[in-house]
Amino acid sequence: MNFCSNCGNPVQLTIPEDDDRKRFCCNHCGMIHYQNPRLVVGAIPEWQDRILLCRRDIEPQRGLWTLPAGYLENGESVEDGARRETREETKAEIIDLSPYFLADLVPINQLYLIFRCQLARPEFAITRESSELRLFREEEIPWDEIAFQVIRVTLQKYFSDRAAGTFPFRNEVVRIALNCPAEPAP
Amino acid sequence: MNFCSNCGNPVQLTIPEDDDRKRFCCNHCGMIHYQNPRLVVGAIPEWQDRILLCRRDIEPQRGLWTLPAGYLENGESVEDGARRETREETKAEIIDLSPYFLADLVPINQLYLIFRCQLARPEFAITRESSELRLFREEEIPWDEIAFQVIRVTLQKYFSDRAAGTFPFRNEVVRIALNCPAEPAP
Repeated sequence: MNFCSNCGNPVQLTIPEDDDRKRFCCNHCGMIHYQNPRLVVGAIPEWQDRILLCRRDIEPQRGLWTLPAGYLENGESVEDGARRETREETKAEIIDLSPYFLADLVPINQLYLIFRCQLARPEFAITRESSELRLFREEEIPWDEIAFQVIRVTLQKYFSDRAAGTFPFRNEVVRIALNCPAEPAP
Repeated sequence: MNFCSNCGNPVQLTIPEDDDRKRFCCNHCGMIHYQNPRLVVGAIPEWQDRILLCRRDIEPQRGLWTLPAGYLENGESVEDGARRETREETKAEIIDLSPYFLADLVPINQLYLIFRCQLARPEFAITRESSELRLFREEEIPWDEIAFQVIRVTLQKYFSDRAAGTFPFRNEVVRIALNCPAEPAP
């Protein structure tokens, strides 16, 4: 950030009064520009004993497999966001959403909220973002071709919880390697 | 938003290529400025059968009671954020955090993530933001003096779940009246 989005003058990185950390501040109009983590919403769409994965047709990690997920937009609920992202990436409709995993990606200021859910029908199709959609049984998951660490961790927890027969809500900091091929930018 | 924070030229509200909603776009440097919901993290600090509330000493809703809560900052986990906000508003330390309620405040692009937790010790003190701190039993809750609707709903759910003896993780859209006295701006 170089310029004030309100008045167009240069901003300074400085600690405002009554604050304890540096913010981008405009000395001209007085606006303080706060920067906060962004929330990504996603889904684990189930059909019987299988789950739906998408092969990415966009960078980063084009060609690798992921769950439908993307940034929550202003004006939508987290459930609506997960439904929209699933529709955009798979053309599938999901129902019975249940919040399952809140993954903290602290170094990149992202939070992933992943829902368990059901496919309304076993219908899906390729999209601009996905070159292939496929339902996978646990033993078929392409572990060596998963696009992002947070998706890998999500799937590991999911299958572990499924084996145990219970899906508690989980919140965890997911360690990511910042020098790895492009960690999530949904 | 009027100006590009990257290059300082005026922005236009228009739909970018491969997108389906209007964004603030800079025709000069090409940057697209996405705007997303912000996450507020908060706590229900328990001590035996009582919970800690803060009387606000800042606007909006100065003089009314609330739970410690505020915007999640870049570079911190949601748990760390809830601990920090509790410390800033009550000087209390909390332990054993458990995610409890994710409240969607869709019209104002905010999400509240509230943790249940324990006070490490029954020690707290007034701060710049709180003129009074007090442990309340359920029958002592000042329902007519709660600062925000989302806090009221959180407390109602909490006491209802406590009576039932179980605290499932909850996610819900909380209806707020936009013409009410200043809905949350933590």
